Amino acid sequence: MSNDEQWMSLAIQLAKATAGQTSPNPMVGAVVVKENRLLGSGAHLRAGTPHAEVHALRMAGEEAQGSTIFVTLEPCNHFGRTPPCTEKIIECGVKRVVIGSGDPDKLVAGKGIARLKEAGIEVVEGVLEQECLQLNEAYFYHRRTGMPFVTLKTATTLDGKIATANGDSRWITGEESRAFVHQLRHEQDAILVGANTVIADDPELTTRLPQGDGIHPVRVILDSKLRTPITAKILDISKASTWIFTTDDKDLFKEAAFQEAGVQVISTGRGPKVDITKVLEILGEKGILSLMVEGGSQINASMLRGNHVHKVIAFLAPKFLGGISSPSSIGGESPEKMSEALSLHRVSWNQYGQDVCVTGYLSG
Amino acid sequence: MSNDEQWMSLAIQLAKATAGQTSPNPMVGAVVVKENRLLGSGAHLRAGTPHAEVHALRMAGEEAQGSTIFVTLEPCNHFGRTPPCTEKIIECGVKRVVIGSGDPDKLVAGKGIARLKEAGIEVVEGVLEQECLQLNEAYFYHRRTGMPFVTLKTATTLDGKIATANGDSRWITGEESRAFVHQLRHEQDAILVGANTVIADDPELTTRLPQGDGIHPVRVILDSKLRTPITAKILDISKASTWIFTTDDKDLFKEAAFQEAGVQVISTGRGPKVDITKVLEILGEKGILSLMVEGGSQINASMLRGNHVHKVIAFLAPKFLGGISSPSSIGGESPEKMSEALSLHRVSWNQYGQDVCVTGYLSG
Amino acid sequence: MSNDEQWMSLAIQLAKATAGQTSPNPMVGAVVVKENRLLGSGAHLRAGTPHAEVHALRMAGEEAQGSTIFVTLEPCNHFGRTPPCTEKIIECGVKRVVIGSGDPDKLVAGKGIARLKEAGIEVVEGVLEQECLQLNEAYFYHRRTGMPFVTLKTATTLDGKIATANGDSRWITGEESRAFVHQLRHEQDAILVGANTVIADDPELTTRLPQGDGIHPVRVILDSKLRTPITAKILDISKASTWIFTTDDKDLFKEAAFQEAGVQVISTGRGPKVDITKVLEILGEKGILSLMVEGGSQINASMLRGNHVHKVIAFLAPKFLGGISSPSSIGGESPEKMSEALSLHRVSWNQYGQDVCVTGYLSG
Amino acid sequence: MSNDEQWMSLAIQLAKATAGQTSPNPMVGAVVVKENRLLGSGAHLRAGTPHAEVHALRMAGEEAQGSTIFVTLEPCNHFGRTPPCTEKIIECGVKRVVIGSGDPDKLVAGKGIARLKEAGIEVVEGVLEQECLQLNEAYFYHRRTGMPFVTLKTATTLDGKIATANGDSRWITGEESRAFVHQLRHEQDAILVGANTVIADDPELTTRLPQGDGIHPVRVILDSKLRTPITAKILDISKASTWIFTTDDKDLFKEAAFQEAGVQVISTGRGPKVDITKVLEILGEKGILSLMVEGGSQINASMLRGNHVHKVIAFLAPKFLGGISSPSSIGGESPEKMSEALSLHRVSWNQYGQDVCVTGYLSG
Ligand SMILES: [Zn+2]
Ligand SMILES: [Zn+2]
Ligand SMILES: [Zn+2]
Ligand SMILES: [Zn+2]
Repeated sequence: MSNDEQWMSLAIQLAKATAGQTSPNPMVGAVVVKENRLLGSGAHLRAGTPHAEVHALRMAGEEAQGSTIFVTLEPCNHFGRTPPCTEKIIECGVKRVVIGSGDPDKLVAGKGIARLKEAGIEVVEGVLEQECLQLNEAYFYHRRTGMPFVTLKTATTLDGKIATANGDSRWITGEESRAFVHQLRHEQDAILVGANTVIADDPELTTRLPQGDGIHPVRVILDSKLRTPITAKILDISKASTWIFTTDDKDLFKEAAFQEAGVQVISTGRGPKVDITKVLEILGEKGILSLMVEGGSQINASMLRGNHVHKVIAFLAPKFLGGISSPSSIGGESPEKMSEALSLHRVSWNQYGQDVCVTGYLSG
Repeated sequence: MSNDEQWMSLAIQLAKATAGQTSPNPMVGAVVVKENRLLGSGAHLRAGTPHAEVHALRMAGEEAQGSTIFVTLEPCNHFGRTPPCTEKIIECGVKRVVIGSGDPDKLVAGKGIARLKEAGIEVVEGVLEQECLQLNEAYFYHRRTGMPFVTLKTATTLDGKIATANGDSRWITGEESRAFVHQLRHEQDAILVGANTVIADDPELTTRLPQGDGIHPVRVILDSKLRTPITAKILDISKASTWIFTTDDKDLFKEAAFQEAGVQVISTGRGPKVDITKVLEILGEKGILSLMVEGGSQINASMLRGNHVHKVIAFLAPKFLGGISSPSSIGGESPEKMSEALSLHRVSWNQYGQDVCVTGYLSG
Repeated sequence: MSNDEQWMSLAIQLAKATAGQTSPNPMVGAVVVKENRLLGSGAHLRAGTPHAEVHALRMAGEEAQGSTIFVTLEPCNHFGRTPPCTEKIIECGVKRVVIGSGDPDKLVAGKGIARLKEAGIEVVEGVLEQECLQLNEAYFYHRRTGMPFVTLKTATTLDGKIATANGDSRWITGEESRAFVHQLRHEQDAILVGANTVIADDPELTTRLPQGDGIHPVRVILDSKLRTPITAKILDISKASTWIFTTDDKDLFKEAAFQEAGVQVISTGRGPKVDITKVLEILGEKGILSLMVEGGSQINASMLRGNHVHKVIAFLAPKFLGGISSPSSIGGESPEKMSEALSLHRVSWNQYGQDVCVTGYLSG
Repeated sequence: MSNDEQWMSLAIQLAKATAGQTSPNPMVGAVVVKENRLLGSGAHLRAGTPHAEVHALRMAGEEAQGSTIFVTLEPCNHFGRTPPCTEKIIECGVKRVVIGSGDPDKLVAGKGIARLKEAGIEVVEGVLEQECLQLNEAYFYHRRTGMPFVTLKTATTLDGKIATANGDSRWITGEESRAFVHQLRHEQDAILVGANTVIADDPELTTRLPQGDGIHPVRVILDSKLRTPITAKILDISKASTWIFTTDDKDLFKEAAFQEAGVQVISTGRGPKVDITKVLEILGEKGILSLMVEGGSQINASMLRGNHVHKVIAFLAPKFLGGISSPSSIGGESPEKMSEALSLHRVSWNQYGQDVCVTGYLSG
């Protein structure tokens, strides 16, 4: 690792430590260095609060004069809820800016770099770029398309089952895998399930971490007719928001009750099914950058076959359930040919206790 | 590794190199050493031919006098198709015998060791014992129970599917996994499939290795009514034997035709289903030590749920197929509770190309 | 890694990034967290400036109320150049303090923890303690003994040579090793060499890192008679300080010239040799926590055989020089018995390019 | 690993197991395979006894017809003490020969391959060639030059010392390193020391392995004046031969006594020093393929600086001895420049207990 990479690596560590808390903003870390001394460090903590550069430069104080700042993402050059970081950098007398990845946001996209160069500052781009891009893969996707980056999470036996025929699913995977799922929830803006899952399991879908609650994602339910029971735990919004997407075919009585409880109910049109593309568009507009699907067979199949999934995290427990009528992780229609199976790319394998976890990307 | 372990390790390498070819005998390797010089090496090559010790001592010739012999399995002490190895060892003037694992065969079990000690030879037992036991896990099981050691091999997508709804299954796993399956066949005495697989895929189930044919296992078909088509490739016994297990409910006309073709047809009784326990007993009697199940959903479920499976080798390709009606690796009835899933023990994971392969043992 | 360990690990990363710049203070990192969100991060940057906790709490602002703070070292409880961190922590409403290692400084030593507990704050001690102790091994030693922690650095051929008979030593080790030595200098408060090395090599002993100068350690010369040439580069104190330890037997004319040049000249007494124990005591008093010996045969031998060395970093290049009269890394008197050789403990090996680097500790 | 490589790998294992016992012949292993079944295996055990191919084909018997033979070295095609292996291969009906490396021996060199092809046999060359070449690096060097392949073994402290000033050297390295040195002796045809070492340490230089004696190399002493004491243990040739190289300046009385004791005394001419090139030529003529130098400072220096060393195995114990007058591993004259140090190539590092062992090659 070069010297620049070592400092950028520290900035990345700081950015990663904010996973889940910065949305709809990206995770960003910054480090100020002069003569190989650390002078400042910071991260962006929450939308509406100072950017990473500001924290790092504030800590550096007057020492920032003549320093190098390492930022995982191109500094902003526009007035948002906070003033532009480029101006702050210039004003502090920074003489070199090392950047991990560019910012695709139309308001930034190259303008930050241009402004810095114009001010006579040396700019180095693309240091540890791959890591910086992966760090904010959801943010980048959302900025490009306006829709959330979708991760499909499954947890199955070796024969692909997610429950017995009568719906029992406790527990497929081991403790370590389940703990990691809560970490994933902590990092996601929203989780999506179908009404069937709500009816069958009555889940809370909140985030429990070893030191108490984590960040709770918005719970998104696809429920074309509003079959969700009024007593469902997921309707308790004291900890986390709940948004139900439905159709015009919805049960109006229930809609009123749900709204009464503080739950948002949104119709995507005539039906008979909820229009997933519309759901994703609306979620994107509402500032949801990342969505994790924790659905049953049917939802998973609709999401996958509709090409709505970008990333897959599949946990596999070393056991067999069996059963023609026990549901598999992906339901729906079978393709005609095995060659129509959806292959993952950039596949990696990790172990969690006795389970294996496959991570990969879909190209579509 | 101690010195003894190093020489035993060479004997194990020799034994492993005979995988698939020694049945119904165990794989055995032997090495003769004196003053840290290799003087002889050998392996048992095929039932009815000399044991490993004999090859190694023959190579050593008169040098065997005063030597140490390393054998992966306790030497035999009885007249079989060949004279007892213990006598050969004594006669050659070997003064130390190092043994990997005892032989559970009633005809040997401790008698070999006793005879050697009686003759004043130093005997060391249990060197690299775990490796030697695993080497012959099928042989040991067969000697103990009279029935074959059963390995269930599956190859699925991440959602556990083995074919599309209309039966297409080419290919789930990648080249590396498929090549390894042929190596597994090479090492197994018999393969078991159901009539449905024969009807759907018309497989040959022979062994193809990079340098041409490997050892072809006996192909065992479970076919209660003899629905196997007369034109099935598997009935061509020019390369490998085919044994069809059926019931008294069998199609007599087909039975005659199959027998005409050289195929063995064996009824396990009244039916309506083939009696798997009887199948395993008969296979054991016929000298089948190891059986690999490469069945469809139904056969796999019957074998697993009947507690007939001892080891599992599950290949998983990083892809999703989906489909409620596409078959999963394990069919049959669903248990009531997820806790009734069958868990693997001593689990290990390997990669073959893009696929992962889970190996584990069932306790039942 | 537990949750607490993950956050402590980030604090350690921040502390490590300040290596070389905090002396005579320890390296300390701090992280403020609430509901698994990062709220503040910081490190102590330089003596006299705010402690790590202050930077982290400042960044957190009002969010610190009810938070957990992770600190690599026990917070201070006394008024130094900055007010006590314990009071700041209490005032900010922090409810849990997680500490890596205690502070042996008499002014802190347990008092910080006691004060926090007294204020009703939950205190967790010893998280990633080993890493935190190693991070500040020099600081801890200095606080305990008042003397610097001494590291002996050698760079030799496989036959232990540091130069040819006529003194040529460029280069023994490869580029990677030499770059790492500059990183080591960056992290040390002082470097020690003998007059012979100054006369033979005329070194600068400054720190060059890929992005320009690093932190230059104080250059300490042992020179009993002040044989250092007036033209020696090491006397140029524009970049780094130079302290010459001598005896009463010194050349008074030179002493004046050196002082004129801004170099400190300190006598340890009558001589004929410089009194190393006194040197270390004086260095300790002057706030030197860490000293790296980069001496020649004689100095290295004196330091080692006088039991003044605590840690060894030995670079070995894969080459042979040979020569009875070419100097070895350790000169001096030979012990009578090989068993009197000084053995290293907690030994580890690393590779730098083609060279190997052995690190270990001396117990004495 | 391809199928061919797997079988060749077994042949290499067999060859390696004969290390030390085949000289002046090479180590060779052979494996006979048909339809992926092992049919024969063997190794060449000792000069004058059957070649590896013969053992393997004998074990295969009539099964060799139509088989493939894997040999680590090109089969011989000439009548030596045994008939040519090529004829045996042809006669047995082998149809494919897979060869690891060619044989540089003028009597073989390509003729074996040519003969096999002429007989219509398919020949594949170069499978795992690097491993096969390294296996017999000494043999190949000897056949090319008529002189032994020389390995310099050193065992030093980190400062390159091999003894205290008064000669104590017990022990520098740990048990594991010393055990490995005995394994190295087992594999070498001869060991070389100087008269000084004999006088100082009175070593036996025999091979002790965990299970008793290993193969004892010829002990070669360089002793220009025959200063070796008549009572030296190394003169006891009951276990191993001793050859003393001297000059015409030798002590004639001692010469007679040595010869009486069965020790060979060989003069390389007028002196005053023993002519090392002549020593190596004579050793080569006497069938010594491999020579390990375990000398003191002076011998090591003469061998190294005379460009007589091909390979280095340097053990380094994590300790410092120190001492200007304690001897280093390489004595002699110092070069003028550090750049004249002799660098190793193809360097690798291994650990033995607490020690590190550097292996490398000299180009000269
Ligand atoms: Zn900004
Ligand atoms: Zn036998
Ligand atoms: Zn403080
Ligand atoms: Zn031959």
